[in-house]
Order: sequence, then C-alpha cells, then structure tokens
Amino acid sequence: MERASYDTDCCSFGRTLALIGDRWSMLILREEFFGVRRFDDLQRNLGIARNILTGRLHNLVDCGILERRLYQDRPRRFEYRLSQKGIDLYPALVALMEWGDRYVADEPGPPLVLRHKRCGQRTRPTLTCSACGEDIDARDMEPEPGPGAVSLTA
Amino acid sequence: MERASYDTDCCSFGRTLALIGDRWSMLILREEFFGVRRFDDLQRNLGIARNILTGRLHNLVDCGILERRLYQDRPRRFEYRLSQKGIDLYPALVALMEWGDRYVADEPGPPLVLRHKRCGQRTRPTLTCSACGEDIDARDMEPEPGPGAVSLTA
Repeated sequence: MERASYDTDCCSFGRTLALIGDRWSMLILREEFFGVRRFDDLQRNLGIARNILTGRLHNLVDCGILERRLYQDRPRRFEYRLSQKGIDLYPALVALMEWGDRYVADEPGPPLVLRHKRCGQRTRPTLTCSACGEDIDARDMEPEPGPGAVSLTA
Repeated sequence: MERASYDTDCCSFGRTLALIGDRWSMLILREEFFGVRRFDDLQRNLGIARNILTGRLHNLVDCGILERRLYQDRPRRFEYRLSQKGIDLYPALVALMEWGDRYVADEPGPPLVLRHKRCGQRTRPTLTCSACGEDIDARDMEPEPGPGAVSLTA
C-alpha cells in the first residue's frame, strides 16, 4: 500500500492496542470469555497484584468493554461482565489462541479445543473473506485508504 | 468450560502474549504487514526509541517471527522480514483492526480497508467455523480440554 496515505494515529489497530494492548488486559479478557467475572477469582487465576487488577478493570469498564454489576448487597460485591463491545473481541482472542496452538503448544497438542455449538463440530476458527468465503492469506490482501484515511502528503 | 481442566501456564493464548503481547511488538508487526522492514523506517513510522526498537526486533527474531537479512554490504544493513510463523499472525492482527474499525474509528469510517486480491472484492475478514463455515459468535463456542490439557484436579 501507499504508506503515506494514512495516519498512524487514526489507525484502528493502533487505537485498539491503546485500549487493550497490554498483557494483563488481554489475560483478563481471556478469563472473562471463560466465564470468570469476579475480582477474587480473576486475581487468583491470574496471580496478578490486586492494585494492577483494579486499574485494568477500571480501564476496561471506562472504555465500555466490561460492565460492572452488583451481585451481592451485604457486603457490596461487583462482578465484571463482557459488554457486546467486549464480546466482539472474541475473534481477535481466538485468532491469537489458534496461532499459539500452532506454534507454541507443547507436543501433545493444544490444551484447549473449541466446539461450535450451532453445528456440533470441533472447530478451528478461520479467517475468511466476507465477499467470497475463501480463507484469508496475508499475501492475498491489499490495503487501501478507507473513508477515514488522512493524507499525509496533502 | 470446566475451569480446573487446564493449566493457565500451558494456555496457547497466554504463551502467545508472552511473545508478542506488548504494544510495541504488535505495532512493529503491523508495519511489517505494510511492508516496512528496515530499522530506520520502523523507527520513524512508530516514533519509538532506538534501544526499545532494537530490543523488540531481537526478541521477534529470537522467537522466529521475524528474519534478519542483509540487504546492503557497505555499510552492512539488515532488514527484518516476516517468517511464515510471523505471516500466520495476520488473522489476529486483522481481527483486532476489524474490532477497532467498529468501535474506535472516527466518524468518516475506517482509515484503511482491505481488498481480497483473489476475488477482487473489498472484504471485512470474518472468523468462521472450519466445520460448517458459519460466522463465529462467542456465545456459540464451547471450550473443551484438548490433548495438551493438564488436569489441575488430579
């Protein structure tokens, strides 16, 4: 692509990383997709310092990826649930897991496999073209300036 | 899923994050997918400190995601190219970009769109089930212990 035709600062990828591009936030999201929603459970599973977990949860709530809900009144206890915005991060997390299964899993194979409840089959989620349905290969993709592109040469 | 049925330390997602789960490494990979391969170009595009860039590049080479190749002899200059292992990170990066286009792009729309060269159409790459071809929704997925699962209850 014409590298000068977009501005890094408005790059959707860069902005996404600014929100969730640290290891703890990503690991919290992994736990959330496993149904782990309470502070103490997150803290124990991740072995994360409480103040760091607090900070990351606040950040994820602030940007609308998690929602804080009261689940117990006395004492007051909150849980953190994925919003739709958070649920929509699933493809990215699964794609990272798939890569890890391929390249960094130990010999016996992946520690976790996925079943697609709608068809009942074990699945390896695959990135496909929304137009033709074929699998996506990086070499087959051509980036082009989109409607939000900012010309740096203007 | 049965949360006790796998060990976090052997989680493919966690291991992947340990390799590339920092913002600079991910941004370097984005540049690589745009064809930016030389130290000075990466440094300028990312506005990253030279010592940090050096460290991240060494790490990405060490774990086999980038390959260092001599492209000029006097003075000796190297470029950093994606290996197959690196190219296979594309689905994860595109999934993060897609999410950003949806949730954090400014009003005019995404700064960048993708064309699938094989079919010639603009595409929004989509995660689909390898068994039935339907789009993946997080709610339709059931994680199960895989061959590399470690029982924590044994």
